[in-house]
Amino acid sequence: MTTEELVNQIQLKKSFLCIGLDTDLDKIPPHLLEGEDPIFEFNKAIIDATQHLCVAYKLNIAFYEAYGLKGWQALEKTMQYLNSNFPEIFTIADAKRGDIGNTSTRYARAFFEELDFDSITVAPYMGRDSIEPFLAFESRHTILLALTSNPGAFDFQTKQAEGRELYKSVLEISQTYKNAHNLMYVVGATKAEYLKEIRELVPDSFLLVPGVGAQGGSLDEVCRYGLNKNIGLLVNSSRGIIYASNGVDFASAAAEKAAELQGQMALQF
Amino acid sequence: MTTEELVNQIQLKKSFLCIGLDTDLDKIPPHLLEGEDPIFEFNKAIIDATQHLCVAYKLNIAFYEAYGLKGWQALEKTMQYLNSNFPEIFTIADAKRGDIGNTSTRYARAFFEELDFDSITVAPYMGRDSIEPFLAFESRHTILLALTSNPGAFDFQTKQAEGRELYKSVLEISQTYKNAHNLMYVVGATKAEYLKEIRELVPDSFLLVPGVGAQGGSLDEVCRYGLNKNIGLLVNSSRGIIYASNGVDFASAAAEKAAELQGQMALQF
Repeated sequence: MTTEELVNQIQLKKSFLCIGLDTDLDKIPPHLLEGEDPIFEFNKAIIDATQHLCVAYKLNIAFYEAYGLKGWQALEKTMQYLNSNFPEIFTIADAKRGDIGNTSTRYARAFFEELDFDSITVAPYMGRDSIEPFLAFESRHTILLALTSNPGAFDFQTKQAEGRELYKSVLEISQTYKNAHNLMYVVGATKAEYLKEIRELVPDSFLLVPGVGAQGGSLDEVCRYGLNKNIGLLVNSSRGIIYASNGVDFASAAAEKAAELQGQMALQF
Repeated sequence: MTTEELVNQIQLKKSFLCIGLDTDLDKIPPHLLEGEDPIFEFNKAIIDATQHLCVAYKLNIAFYEAYGLKGWQALEKTMQYLNSNFPEIFTIADAKRGDIGNTSTRYARAFFEELDFDSITVAPYMGRDSIEPFLAFESRHTILLALTSNPGAFDFQTKQAEGRELYKSVLEISQTYKNAHNLMYVVGATKAEYLKEIRELVPDSFLLVPGVGAQGGSLDEVCRYGLNKNIGLLVNSSRGIIYASNGVDFASAAAEKAAELQGQMALQF
């Protein structure tokens, strides 16, 4: 999906909501566990109930890998379902990969070609030749970790590195990479006050913003500092939406929570 | 496996060789492609031919993920084969994972419990709460990226961060993490001259050193600067060993290359 197509969807739906499918067998409604593929059945029900309210789904790959083969099967089925039925929705493999060049190419193929994701999150630590293999895929997007939502972000990301914080170096240096127009960045909602300076460095880039909801980030603050002329944000909520209810009404409860966030987002249009 | 058991194996075999099973269907001998599970068959043959010469196998997870379900099956079978037949050999999931706390726990379970690896490589960018969930597993090891072997390492890792290079901050700060005794570090063989200073910061830690062979690192230099009283090194070679021949003699050719390296290593005992 091109950035332009994503922007069109955002305008059409008056939404920049991304829903995180962090599907956990210990947390989904117990009545689903009797089925053949409870992970996929849960995802399908959440997608059917919320697809009109969001523009993106983010699948945290750890949750699928944790179940081995069964998890990969559910991941593949979920992606096939999304791409067959809702090809206009942007998909994110939240994988935080990154390795030396030929290995990054392998990961890129796995997520962009085999699984047909529109984008993948990538860790910047290994630098240019670990990231450019992802950027080489046209109409796919590489979402680089810049400033993450967790407390450990202060261990290294905010360290002064040659006169500026490391995450700012990541933003600036990555903009010199080949096909940098395919870059987006992760900035945690819990660090909304940093968004103003981030916007000065990458005014046009899309930012994927996790941490609204369960992690305590504020949508208002994220909008105040993060919006650009194309909206330029994908605000993610996972647990706050998908686990809104543990009963047979889980899908409609998720839709209600998603509608709440989409309603707040619509005020920005 | 405990560190002590690993050290015993190293002394017993007079080897600190790690063989990287970066198994690629485009590179393995064509006659294997007719079989039912060529990835596993290749791995099994390499393992059988080299297990007496090395103390560790490193499986780069990207190579398996790239083949989707089939790849995961081959990964599981390879780990079952290794753990059933050669439980004394240290196994490394070269996965370079790292995510917020509860997600890192998922990855830790996938690799330590489901797949039963002894260790996993982890990226440090997200800091303490992304790494401690891995360290919480006793007798498992978390191998943190410090200074990697690729050119992109100079983008961020060697940046001066608050008076010292970022990779040195990673070494120092990570030593304050809970269960830091379960830490090892990745230091590329192509950066052997840095090993002297690294040894001053982490004199007792095991270092996983990729980049000998195809990437151009020198075993002699790595030994000169990197050895400690317990050896303290796992030197990895992947392509240089496993693709030594593309014919029916591939396993014996791999054994020959492995024996060459082991022979050089034996001089250190």
